[in-house]
Amino acid sequence: MTLTLDYTCFLSGGPQGDVGVDPSQLELAASQHAGHLASLVAKRESGQLGFFDLPEQRAPLDAIRNYAAQVEGRFENVVVLGIGGSALGTQALHAALSPVLHDNRSQRQRPRLFVVDNVDPVLVGGVLRVANPGTTLFNVISKSGSTAETMSQFLLFLEALKAALGDAWREHVVVTTDAEQGFLRPFADAHGLQSFVVPANVGGRFSVLSPVGLLPGALLGWDLDALLEGAARGRDRCLAADFSANPAALWASCHHLLDTQAGVHNQVLFPYSHRLRLLVDWNVQLVAESLGKLTPSGERVGPLPHGAVGATDQHSQVQLFAEGPRDKAFTFLRVMNHLDDMVIPEPPEGLGELGYLAGKTFGQLLDAECQATRLALTDAGCPSALITLPHVDASTVGEFLMWSMVATAFGGELYGINAFDQPGVEAGKIATYGLMGRAGFEAERARVEGSRISDDRYRVV
Amino acid sequence: MTLTLDYTCFLSGGPQGDVGVDPSQLELAASQHAGHLASLVAKRESGQLGFFDLPEQRAPLDAIRNYAAQVEGRFENVVVLGIGGSALGTQALHAALSPVLHDNRSQRQRPRLFVVDNVDPVLVGGVLRVANPGTTLFNVISKSGSTAETMSQFLLFLEALKAALGDAWREHVVVTTDAEQGFLRPFADAHGLQSFVVPANVGGRFSVLSPVGLLPGALLGWDLDALLEGAARGRDRCLAADFSANPAALWASCHHLLDTQAGVHNQVLFPYSHRLRLLVDWNVQLVAESLGKLTPSGERVGPLPHGAVGATDQHSQVQLFAEGPRDKAFTFLRVMNHLDDMVIPEPPEGLGELGYLAGKTFGQLLDAECQATRLALTDAGCPSALITLPHVDASTVGEFLMWSMVATAFGGELYGINAFDQPGVEAGKIATYGLMGRAGFEAERARVEGSRISDDRYRVV
Repeated sequence: MTLTLDYTCFLSGGPQGDVGVDPSQLELAASQHAGHLASLVAKRESGQLGFFDLPEQRAPLDAIRNYAAQVEGRFENVVVLGIGGSALGTQALHAALSPVLHDNRSQRQRPRLFVVDNVDPVLVGGVLRVANPGTTLFNVISKSGSTAETMSQFLLFLEALKAALGDAWREHVVVTTDAEQGFLRPFADAHGLQSFVVPANVGGRFSVLSPVGLLPGALLGWDLDALLEGAARGRDRCLAADFSANPAALWASCHHLLDTQAGVHNQVLFPYSHRLRLLVDWNVQLVAESLGKLTPSGERVGPLPHGAVGATDQHSQVQLFAEGPRDKAFTFLRVMNHLDDMVIPEPPEGLGELGYLAGKTFGQLLDAECQATRLALTDAGCPSALITLPHVDASTVGEFLMWSMVATAFGGELYGINAFDQPGVEAGKIATYGLMGRAGFEAERARVEGSRISDDRYRVV
Repeated sequence: MTLTLDYTCFLSGGPQGDVGVDPSQLELAASQHAGHLASLVAKRESGQLGFFDLPEQRAPLDAIRNYAAQVEGRFENVVVLGIGGSALGTQALHAALSPVLHDNRSQRQRPRLFVVDNVDPVLVGGVLRVANPGTTLFNVISKSGSTAETMSQFLLFLEALKAALGDAWREHVVVTTDAEQGFLRPFADAHGLQSFVVPANVGGRFSVLSPVGLLPGALLGWDLDALLEGAARGRDRCLAADFSANPAALWASCHHLLDTQAGVHNQVLFPYSHRLRLLVDWNVQLVAESLGKLTPSGERVGPLPHGAVGATDQHSQVQLFAEGPRDKAFTFLRVMNHLDDMVIPEPPEGLGELGYLAGKTFGQLLDAECQATRLALTDAGCPSALITLPHVDASTVGEFLMWSMVATAFGGELYGINAFDQPGVEAGKIATYGLMGRAGFEAERARVEGSRISDDRYRVV
């Protein structure tokens, strides 16, 4: 059971006023496919693109499973300390693969997951209050081993663990970080902490299938074999030399042509599924950090990845999508079969006009809304693609993750940029260090504010 | 304690390459302010813009409080059945004003809130499983009284209530809907259900301060007096005749000029606060449905409202913001004082390089990141505004809600469109009715799919 991509509605050629890809441009893209594929394969073979080969990583998977089996039943809570690529994949997979609202029985079987992906004291303090140290496992995740947000949280929870448990704190911390760089690796080694490795050639936003996502998954009971099998299948399809059979190349090429040729600068991922809603946030980081770049010639490129969730956002964003500027490319995620689908009951007396709903299932209503909204946007001349999942499970979600990651890698080739670095975040980090640094917080704040922020040509109201 | 708006970094005139509002254009906007204000005031006085006067609604507020007092301590769960404007305001205020993660004591004091804002069977079925009918209150919210998603949920939960409680189901349903239109009002009257009114002149996306948001708020214990007092203060400031002292007019005018004169088509609301993160989604609906419109001359207008949350999205979107196209206007929400702030502890041996964090609070780190990111984006030539909240409470959040709503109303004047209708969602609704309608689901689906969606000039991969 695999995914399908229908990109026909990305193409122009419909009623007057349609925005879309000119089929002749897509023919040109097809002729360039071999070169882009060869470039990615060469990077993979030279060891740069580790995410391609994560589905076959047996040794770390075995170690993760051994560890998960060893601690099974011991922890009520798993707290992930991580941000960005150390958080978004786990959050997306948790929404997709863990029961969304546990009944009492499954709550006892599996730990609760908290992902502390911000430094707001309300969030950090809230987790500190509800996660009893004695029954909580902390998974500290930082590829660099020095992420300010994650390390500040770790200092707090470490203090709480030591206060509550003494030397036994070591059994409540598991570290996922680079094999060598950063402060976490030597700290883990010095204290004999359980630890796992983020491969050096796997960037944070491409790391969901590494121990970053697999360890929480093992603790929470996801089907990791199916996840990796689906990812491998998706990768192999996305390496197809036949452009017309390569979903990642087609999806990326259409997006690139829409952005650069048709003024369609925004990409909206639009899953019709509550379980797939957080894939949107994962995809936002993947696309934004990978493709939002200065080109070697100094041009600013990169689409704005945006999200909507069906049917919810029909009541929020579809007005804009249908009548506003045609600068958005939509990718609908349609699910054919929903888990535990339920029939909408017959209406009681007085609500007879709702009879059209009765006898259908909630899944059918959701699917009808997906088709209807796509049809309405198509008729409004807006470009859209459709990815169909036979159902939501570890295998189909694994395949989608790989489609997105490989499509993003193709995007780097198409835009002529490095999709695997993130130089644009350095200025903010340096300014933060300045504000937090040794010279004193208030003095630094005054200095930095004095540069441009407080240039009050107009007064503050 | 009120909010401030600093919009200086929305203006151009900095280093070469900056994108921003030309101050002379803002002078022109200032000269048009009196006309736009008079138009809004006339609409308000003719009774069209009910949201302006929600802060003074004493009778419904008293009725809500009486009802909340009457049922206090009786329900463990409050389940809101609602979507779009019937859900987003309550979700945003719940995140901002209810304790984020309850300790055991407050969990007993206040009911849990579930907002069923989708028809995915995983969500609907999950709430059905965990919300015991005997201890659950269902608040069915639909301004039109006929929303397909909400009514299908209601049919399901109504059946479950009747099966569990017999005639006593009536004490577990409270209805919030129009005074006259739709199916819900006569049904509530026929069964003597507790009910509240969404005023006819208050659109869903402007209804958070009506019983739509106030009833859940009363049940959950928000400070409604402060919320409405803050909203009234915000409204009055946003009706100022002095353009330079009117935050809504300034914010809206800068956004409009950036969109129409400087190619800045995307608006990013960027709160540095975990508690304010869902204001983003509320604001997305408000802006998208209000301003995403066809003008009378057939032009497609409207910015794309987008969100980011600090510090989290520094590790997701800031790369794109800093180096990608300068087509985004940022509004940072900065919080000066955080509730229950905590000091970051001294690092243990081996983590000494984290000493720069120790002794500062998490709130200070968050604030430093807010300032640093804004500085970095300013230095990258990207336009931004800064709204500062002294702290997050009902009063400041109420003021922000009103700033956004009045700014959106000004936006309607600036774009020359009706900010209060949503004609663009009808096509999708009609197609859904077709797919769900009497002629048979499968037959209709085949018919609708046959129109354009299945036009497979390129095959599906």
